[in-house]
Amino acid sequence: MNIRHIIIGEPLATDQAIHERLSKLKALAVFSSDALSSSTYATEAILLVLIAAGTSALGVSWWVALGIAALMTVVAFSYHQTIHAYPNGGGAYIVSKENLGRTPGLVAAAALLIDYILTVAVSVSAGTAALTSAFPETAPFRVEVALLIVIFISVMNLRGVKESGTFFAIPTYAFVIGMLVMIGIGVVKALTGSIVPVPQPSPEVLQHEMTSLQGLTLFLVLRAFAAGCTALTGIEAISNGIPAFKPPESQNAGKTLIAMVVLLCTMFIGLTFLANQYQVVAVHHSNTTVLSQIARAIFGDGSPLFYYMQIATLLILSLAANTAYADFPRLASLIARDRYLPRQLTNLGDRLVFSNGIITLSVAASVLIILFEAREHNLLPLYAVGVFLSFTLSQSGMVVHWFKERKLPNFKPDLKWRFHVGVNAFGAVCTFVVLIVLMVTKFVEGAWIVIAAIPILFYLFTRIHKHYEKVAHSLSLDGLEPGPLAERYATYTDRNHVRVVVLMNSLNRCSLQALEYALRISDMVRVCAIEVEPESTERLHQRWKDWNLKIPLDIVPSSYREIGKPLIKYLHHLDEESTEVIPTVVVLPEFVVSTWWEKLLHNQSSVAIRSALYHDQIARGRGRPVINVPYRIGDTLYQPIAITERAPVPEPEPQTEVSAAPPATTAEADAPTQESVETDTQ
Amino acid sequence: MNIRHIIIGEPLATDQAIHERLSKLKALAVFSSDALSSSTYATEAILLVLIAAGTSALGVSWWVALGIAALMTVVAFSYHQTIHAYPNGGGAYIVSKENLGRTPGLVAAAALLIDYILTVAVSVSAGTAALTSAFPETAPFRVEVALLIVIFISVMNLRGVKESGTFFAIPTYAFVIGMLVMIGIGVVKALTGSIVPVPQPSPEVLQHEMTSLQGLTLFLVLRAFAAGCTALTGIEAISNGIPAFKPPESQNAGKTLIAMVVLLCTMFIGLTFLANQYQVVAVHHSNTTVLSQIARAIFGDGSPLFYYMQIATLLILSLAANTAYADFPRLASLIARDRYLPRQLTNLGDRLVFSNGIITLSVAASVLIILFEAREHNLLPLYAVGVFLSFTLSQSGMVVHWFKERKLPNFKPDLKWRFHVGVNAFGAVCTFVVLIVLMVTKFVEGAWIVIAAIPILFYLFTRIHKHYEKVAHSLSLDGLEPGPLAERYATYTDRNHVRVVVLMNSLNRCSLQALEYALRISDMVRVCAIEVEPESTERLHQRWKDWNLKIPLDIVPSSYREIGKPLIKYLHHLDEESTEVIPTVVVLPEFVVSTWWEKLLHNQSSVAIRSALYHDQIARGRGRPVINVPYRIGDTLYQPIAITERAPVPEPEPQTEVSAAPPATTAEADAPTQESVETDTQ
Repeated sequence: MNIRHIIIGEPLATDQAIHERLSKLKALAVFSSDALSSSTYATEAILLVLIAAGTSALGVSWWVALGIAALMTVVAFSYHQTIHAYPNGGGAYIVSKENLGRTPGLVAAAALLIDYILTVAVSVSAGTAALTSAFPETAPFRVEVALLIVIFISVMNLRGVKESGTFFAIPTYAFVIGMLVMIGIGVVKALTGSIVPVPQPSPEVLQHEMTSLQGLTLFLVLRAFAAGCTALTGIEAISNGIPAFKPPESQNAGKTLIAMVVLLCTMFIGLTFLANQYQVVAVHHSNTTVLSQIARAIFGDGSPLFYYMQIATLLILSLAANTAYADFPRLASLIARDRYLPRQLTNLGDRLVFSNGIITLSVAASVLIILFEAREHNLLPLYAVGVFLSFTLSQSGMVVHWFKERKLPNFKPDLKWRFHVGVNAFGAVCTFVVLIVLMVTKFVEGAWIVIAAIPILFYLFTRIHKHYEKVAHSLSLDGLEPGPLAERYATYTDRNHVRVVVLMNSLNRCSLQALEYALRISDMVRVCAIEVEPESTERLHQRWKDWNLKIPLDIVPSSYREIGKPLIKYLHHLDEESTEVIPTVVVLPEFVVSTWWEKLLHNQSSVAIRSALYHDQIARGRGRPVINVPYRIGDTLYQPIAITERAPVPEPEPQTEVSAAPPATTAEADAPTQESVETDTQ
Repeated sequence: MNIRHIIIGEPLATDQAIHERLSKLKALAVFSSDALSSSTYATEAILLVLIAAGTSALGVSWWVALGIAALMTVVAFSYHQTIHAYPNGGGAYIVSKENLGRTPGLVAAAALLIDYILTVAVSVSAGTAALTSAFPETAPFRVEVALLIVIFISVMNLRGVKESGTFFAIPTYAFVIGMLVMIGIGVVKALTGSIVPVPQPSPEVLQHEMTSLQGLTLFLVLRAFAAGCTALTGIEAISNGIPAFKPPESQNAGKTLIAMVVLLCTMFIGLTFLANQYQVVAVHHSNTTVLSQIARAIFGDGSPLFYYMQIATLLILSLAANTAYADFPRLASLIARDRYLPRQLTNLGDRLVFSNGIITLSVAASVLIILFEAREHNLLPLYAVGVFLSFTLSQSGMVVHWFKERKLPNFKPDLKWRFHVGVNAFGAVCTFVVLIVLMVTKFVEGAWIVIAAIPILFYLFTRIHKHYEKVAHSLSLDGLEPGPLAERYATYTDRNHVRVVVLMNSLNRCSLQALEYALRISDMVRVCAIEVEPESTERLHQRWKDWNLKIPLDIVPSSYREIGKPLIKYLHHLDEESTEVIPTVVVLPEFVVSTWWEKLLHNQSSVAIRSALYHDQIARGRGRPVINVPYRIGDTLYQPIAITERAPVPEPEPQTEVSAAPPATTAEADAPTQESVETDTQ
C-alpha cells in the first residue's frame, strides 16, 4: 500500500481529473514523440532495403522519401478532419465502428492495440540501439536495458498523464532542437560543398548485403517505400488522445497535429537528404545507426554534440513508447466499455490513469522485446501493417461519415464538403495501397504474425462480448413491473418464513452468537452438526438435553469424516421438503483470529464448506444465501445476558430435572475448552 | 481428488477402524523393525569409537556389547511393566505426564518427537548406506535415493496401518531369517575355527583413524558404550503403539515386546561376536558397513546370499523408519488432543491414519537427510540422546506410578510390588547414566542440537497451548444460565429489528434477489451504493425515483475510487446511531460464474469488501454478520413475479407519474447490460 504510494504517488481524487489535462506544449511531447522518433529509423529502413542492389542504388532513397512525405501530408490532413469531426476522441476504432460497423471497428481496434504494443517494443529497442551504438560495450545487455526502460516508462505513466507529460517534454524538445541544428549544419555544409563522405563498410560486408541478383527492381523500390512508411506511424496518436487535451480539445489537438507533421517532414526529408550527401551505407546487424553516422560526420566523433544527439535519440525513441502508453490504455478502456475486453481495463487507478491497461501494455511489450532480442529491425516488419490497416479503416470511415451528412436537411455538396471527402478518400486509397505493398513485401519477414494475430484478437473480443451479453441478459430487469415490486417492498407480508440452518459441532459463545442471530431473522431455525467425531456431537446432543433447547438439532453422520458432501445432501433434503421459494439458508459461525499462525492452529473446514456450497451452486443454480456470523476472541455476545460478568457456576438444585444441568455446566470447566477448538471447524 | 484415491486408496469408513488393528505377527514387523534394525549398525558404532585406540582395542567391543545387552533387557522388562500398567498406550509422554506432571511430560514428548524424526532420517540413511556398499556406483545419489525411500514409506503409511503392516512384514522377517542364518553359520565356523579374518584397511587409513593419543582410555570405552546404546532405540516403540494391537491390546503388545527383545539381543550379540572373530575394522567415510564385511566373509563376495543380506538390510533399515511412522503421528495426535500442537494433527485421514502427522514427519526427516547428506554416522550422535531422555523419564514415571499404589486401600508392599519398583528404578538409573554419558561424549558431535531443540519445541508447545486456552476461555459458556436462554429461544420477541444494508451499485436480478432476501429477514433495510463511477450511481438513483422504491438508498461518495474504506466508515456511522446490539448486517449480492476465465472478466471488488470487513473485524471486534446472496446466470428470482416469463416492455400510460417509468424500463434494453458487469463489483 505505502510502497505503492511512494512509487506512483498519492492517490488523486476523481474530481481532479480536469487538472490532469495537457497543454498543447506537453501534448506535443506526449503524442508526437512516436511520430517524430520514427524519423530516426525511417531513412535507415529505406537504405537497408536499397543496399540489396548495391551502393549505387542508395540514391533512390531520396525520391522514395519525397513520396512518403507526400503521403504523410495527406494522412495528417485527413486525420485533422477526423479530429474536428469527432471532438471527443475519433480514433480508428470509434470512426470505423460508427461508420463502417462493428466488425471493421473491432478489426481497427485489434490492429491498433497490436500496433501500440509493437510501438513500445520497437521504440524501446531502437532507443537501446542508439545507446549501444554510442557505447558499444553496452551491446550485450540490450535486452536488459530495454526492459529497464519499459519498466521506467510504465511507472512514469502510472504516476499520471500530466506528470509523465511534464517529465517527457524536456527530452522531446531536446531531440527536436538537436535534429534541427544537425540538419541545419548539414544542409549548409552540403550547399558549401564541404561534405566528406563517411567511411564505407568493407567490400565483403557490402558483398554480403548485395542480395538482389537482378539489381534495382521495382519490387525493391516498393519494398523500400513500404519500409520507409514506418515514418507515418504515430500520426494517428493525437486522434486517439483528444480527451487528454485542455479544452477546447479538438482545436488544440488539431493545432498540435499540424505542428507535429511539419516537424516530422522536415526531419525525415532532411535526414534522408544528408544520408545521400554523406553516402551513408546501412548494413544489417550493425550497432551503428544511420543517424549516428551522420551525427558523427557532422559533429565529429566523440564530440559532446555527437553524444548529445545519441542520448537525445535514445530518449525520443523510448518516448515513442510513451505515446503508446498514452493511447493504448485509453483505447482499451473504450473497447472494454463496449464490453469487448475485460471490465477491469475501465478502472481508473490511483492517479486517474487506466492502470490495468498500462500494465497490460508493458507486459505484452516486454514479451515481444525478449522474443525479438530487442532488435527493432526484426520488429519493424510487424510494425507498419497494423498502423496502415487502422489508417485505411479510419479514412474510409471518414468518407462514409461525410456521405452520411448528405441525409441532413438543407445539405448541399459544396466545395468544402467535396474537399473533405476528397482528402479522406485519397488518404484511404493511398494508405490502402501501402497496406497491400506492406503485406506483400513484408509478409514473410513477419507481417504474417500481425495478419494472424488480428483475427485471434477479434475472436477474443467476440467471446468476451458474448459472455458479458449473456450476463447482461440474465441480469436485465425487463419483465418486472416496478409498480407491484415497490408496493410489496413497502408492506412486506411473509417475513421470517425462510428456513435457516446453523452449522455447529459444539455450543459455545461463537456458535451461540450465530444461533442468536439466526433466531432473530427466522422462525424456522434448525441446528445441524456434521458428525466427524462422535464424541463431540454426543456432547452437543447432551447439551441440548441439559439445556432442553427446543430448537431442532440434526446430527448428520459422515462415515468418511468429510463435511462437504453430507452437508449438501442434508440441505437438498431440506430444500425438497420445503415449499419456500428461498432455499434453506446456511449460517456459519466464524471464529476470527488475527494472525497467520493463529489461523494455522484452527481447522480449515470452513474452506471445505464454502467450496462445497460453491460447487453445489454451480451445479444446481438456485442461489442459497450464506450468513457468516463472525466472533472474535473476547467479543461480547449479542445478547445482554452474555455481556454480564461471568457468573460462578450455579449450585445444583435438589430436584432431578435441573440437577442434570449443573454437572454439565461444571463439566464446562473442561468441556468448553475441549469444544472450543472444534468451533471453527464449522 | 481421484488421483489421491489412486495413490492412497479409497476412503475407509470410520467404523472400519477396528478392522485396521494389527495381529501380533504384523505388529512385530511394524514396531520391532526399528529396534531390530539398530542391530545392523550398533556394532559398527562401537567399533568406530574403539578404532581410535588402534585395532588392538577392538576386542573390548565384545564386553561393551554384553553390557549393552544387559541394559537392553532391563529397559525392555520395565517397558513390559509399563505396557500392562497403561493398557491404552503408555508412551513416555503419557507416563511422565500422569506421574511426573506436565513439564516432564512435554519434555518427554519433545524428546520422542525429535527422536522419531531422527529415526526416519537415520534408518533411511543407513538403508541407503547398505545399498551403496552393495552397489558402490549408487553412492553419489545417496541423498536422492534416501528421499525416494522416505516418499515411498510415507505413501505406504498414508494407505493405512494394516496395509503397510502387511506390506512391510515380508522384508522384516526376510531380514531376521537372513541374520539368524548368517550368525548361525558364522558361529559354527568360529567353533570349527575355520575363520579367515577379513582384509584390513591400508596402514595409512588405520593411522588416520587412530586419533586417541593415550590409547584405550575409560572415556573411550564409555564413548563406545554410549555409541552402542543406539541398539536400544526403538524398544519404546511398542509402548506408544498399544492401541494399534488387536484386543487384548496389552497382552499382545507385551508378548510382541518379549519376542522383539529376544531377537534383538541375539542379533546384536551375535554380530559383535562375529565382528571380533573376523577382526572386522570399521573406518569412517567408507561405503562398506561392518555387516556387509561379515556377510561377504561368510557368504562369499558377490554370492546371492551376500546380496540377499544387503537388500534385506536396506529394507529393514528403511523399515525402522516405518516404526517411527507408526508412532509419531499417534503421539502427535495425543499431544494435539491436549492442545499442545495444532488441532489438525488429530484429524483421521481417508485411510483412518493421522495423515497430517505422517506428512509432518516426512518433511522434517527429509530436511534432516538433506542437511546431513544422508550419512547416518553424522546423525547417530543426535539420535540416542532423545531416546534415553524419554527412557529415563518414563522409567521414573513408572516408579512414581508404583508408589502411588501405596495410597490404595488394603495395599501392602509385597514382593511383586517391590520387584516392579526395583526394575523400573534400576532401568531409570541405568538409562539416566547412559543419558549423561551420551550428552557428555556426544555433545560436541551434535547432541547439543537435540539438547537445544527440546526446549525450543517445549516453548512451541506452551505457546500453542496458551492460544488454545485463550480461545477456549473466550468461547466457554460458563456464566450463561441455560434456563432463560432456552426460554428466550422458545418465544423470541424482538425479531426483525436488525438493520440490514444491501450493497449494490445497480439494480438488476442479482442485486434484486439480495434485496428480496434482505426484506424477508428485516424491516430495517437500507441500500448502499459506493460511488466509484458517478454515472452508475446516478442511474441507480434514477431507478429508485422511477420505481419510487421506499427503501432508503444511501449513495456513499468515494473520491479515491476505492470501496473498502468508505464502506467501513458508513457502517460505523450506522452502528453508532443504532441502539441495536447486533451491528449493521451487510448483504452482498454475489454473481456466480463457473469458469476461471469468466471470473477474470468480473471485477474483484467483492474481495476488497471482504478484506475490508475482515480487518474492521480484527480492529473493532463486534462480529458483524455478512450475508452472501448468490445469483447464477439463468437463475430465477426468489419472487414468483420474477419467475414468470419475461413480459414485453409495458406501453407507457398517459398520465405523467407512471410515464416516468417506461422510458426507464425501455432504457433497460441498454442500461442493464451497462450495469450488469458492475453487479459483482458489490
